Amino acid sequence: MTDQVITRARPATIIDVARAAGVAVGTVSRYLNGQPIRGGNRDRIAQVIDELGYRRNSAAASMKTNTTHIVGLLVPAVGEFHAALLDRLTRRMRQTGRAVLCYCHDTEPTSFMEGLEFFAGHRVDAVVMDGNEDLRQRLAPYIAEGMLVVLYDNDLPELSADRVFVENRRASKRLVDHVLDLGHERVAIIHGNLRDSVARDRLEGYRDALKAHGVPEHPELVVDAGWNEYRGYTCMGDLMALPNPPTAVFGANYNMSIGALRWLREHDVSIPEDISLVSFDDVPAFSVHSPGITAVGQPVDKMAEAIVSILTERLGPNGALGKRTMRIDAEITLRGSTRRLRR
Amino acid sequence: MTDQVITRARPATIIDVARAAGVAVGTVSRYLNGQPIRGGNRDRIAQVIDELGYRRNSAAASMKTNTTHIVGLLVPAVGEFHAALLDRLTRRMRQTGRAVLCYCHDTEPTSFMEGLEFFAGHRVDAVVMDGNEDLRQRLAPYIAEGMLVVLYDNDLPELSADRVFVENRRASKRLVDHVLDLGHERVAIIHGNLRDSVARDRLEGYRDALKAHGVPEHPELVVDAGWNEYRGYTCMGDLMALPNPPTAVFGANYNMSIGALRWLREHDVSIPEDISLVSFDDVPAFSVHSPGITAVGQPVDKMAEAIVSILTERLGPNGALGKRTMRIDAEITLRGSTRRLRR
Repeated sequence: MTDQVITRARPATIIDVARAAGVAVGTVSRYLNGQPIRGGNRDRIAQVIDELGYRRNSAAASMKTNTTHIVGLLVPAVGEFHAALLDRLTRRMRQTGRAVLCYCHDTEPTSFMEGLEFFAGHRVDAVVMDGNEDLRQRLAPYIAEGMLVVLYDNDLPELSADRVFVENRRASKRLVDHVLDLGHERVAIIHGNLRDSVARDRLEGYRDALKAHGVPEHPELVVDAGWNEYRGYTCMGDLMALPNPPTAVFGANYNMSIGALRWLREHDVSIPEDISLVSFDDVPAFSVHSPGITAVGQPVDKMAEAIVSILTERLGPNGALGKRTMRIDAEITLRGSTRRLRR
Repeated sequence: MTDQVITRARPATIIDVARAAGVAVGTVSRYLNGQPIRGGNRDRIAQVIDELGYRRNSAAASMKTNTTHIVGLLVPAVGEFHAALLDRLTRRMRQTGRAVLCYCHDTEPTSFMEGLEFFAGHRVDAVVMDGNEDLRQRLAPYIAEGMLVVLYDNDLPELSADRVFVENRRASKRLVDHVLDLGHERVAIIHGNLRDSVARDRLEGYRDALKAHGVPEHPELVVDAGWNEYRGYTCMGDLMALPNPPTAVFGANYNMSIGALRWLREHDVSIPEDISLVSFDDVPAFSVHSPGITAVGQPVDKMAEAIVSILTERLGPNGALGKRTMRIDAEITLRGSTRRLRR
């Protein structure tokens, strides 16, 4: 800082610094990132930064030095849930001077490794990921070498990481409770890949509700569509072809529920007259659908808030000891897709 | 490269290099990024990389040196269209050894500047952005200082940038042609902010169709909902309150059309019996809706392909001269949301 006050309509930019120092923007960037540049340039840039009062980012001032201000996000694909999460994360990270580097792994081992290598090679401040089971073995050495990891959605219990989870089991129980309260007894679940803890949690919630209502579980009503829209479609057809089909269906994510909705529409099965349907995830398709679909909304705002607060603490000047697990409740929006069963 | 062949179950990772060299992963990363490290470490890392045949990324080998392999994406928000674009971009970029750094600008001048500064400060290889009008003045100096920019959606004509646009005007004309062919004459358009060239293009397409059919334009049927879902909702109400309301509506993006659909549902106006509706953008909500909504699908796959091919050429060993503009056709999916008008 100089004691000379320069009045200006807007804060100085990296371009102002480059022009005043007579160097390229890339050279200023290299200087800011601690990369080697010629000694004469270094001194001149330092002086100009001082004179212009240039601050790379106001929020960055309070951060540990030697960080990249980039947080990696490793996701299977950017569908509606991950888009919402990325949107909220990006906005909140921005307030802490960070941006989000997005990598899709497509549930492919090669892509997992590429993503982790990319993040490690770029020294991202932390990696946020959905805790896919295939990552468990591969992730451990990176964590051992200092990679900060925040898991959401799926747990990988042995790994040293922070965790932000939705109360999947509890929300699923409440959703199925609602259907059982309406008198349904043949309630099907179209669930995701049971290698994922999130799929098991939602299935357990379904079972909790059945138990609480004294309704027996019928194995033919528990079907695996692997999170996939097309398999949601075919599973719905299989369920309706049963000698004694379900009167209600719980779709454990929006992709599978949308597949089920397509099958029902194409086969003129009316909701809720012929079948009741509820879903995990709340997407625009459910509120626009006629009737609206009763659904559990993912608390993406709160998830992003929790992830950013953990990272801010951990990357702050004092760091933080001990890994944290935060659990966030999810709320149900009741619409018109269920009906009371006449008995 | 050594001439010694090492057989291994998997390719060497940055962790293998760090362990073999006895340094931290971050030190290897600094070495790979040309940042200063102690001379002894540098020699040891170079030797280990040689011995292990470590390649940072197979695709990266053909790239210009001194690039970061990061491409910035500056978007207003990560809604459904941008999520799809980001998904496709991320996958295609991955094949060229790059990842996407995502920054939301929220149409706020401060955020624009933060995003540009962040990208410049991190020396991203290029920036992909939607060409928001507010950016025009701010962007020019960054481009003058060497920032590579690819614009999509909106044009900022004077700027030196590559461009990938959808044939918005042509697709809009075809969509409105379809409605006029069915005998509608009072066709409304709910359009976006006319400061954006994409909003003007879609409105011009609407006008082209009217002219081609010899149907006069009625100013009260041309309404501005600024891309916004809630204003789509209120505009739909205003249109239906006209003494002579429209018999068909063209929503110029999915947000505004979803708002319009909500208003129609809440007021028991049936599609297509009472009103026909078509939309730009094709989202799951439109195919799940009953009846399905006739819509123009954004060709996100082709857009991502075009953007990545431009960047690959421009960042390749030979660079590329002269800025390019690519225009991509968009296709209409006909569903049940329009009907022939009885006259």
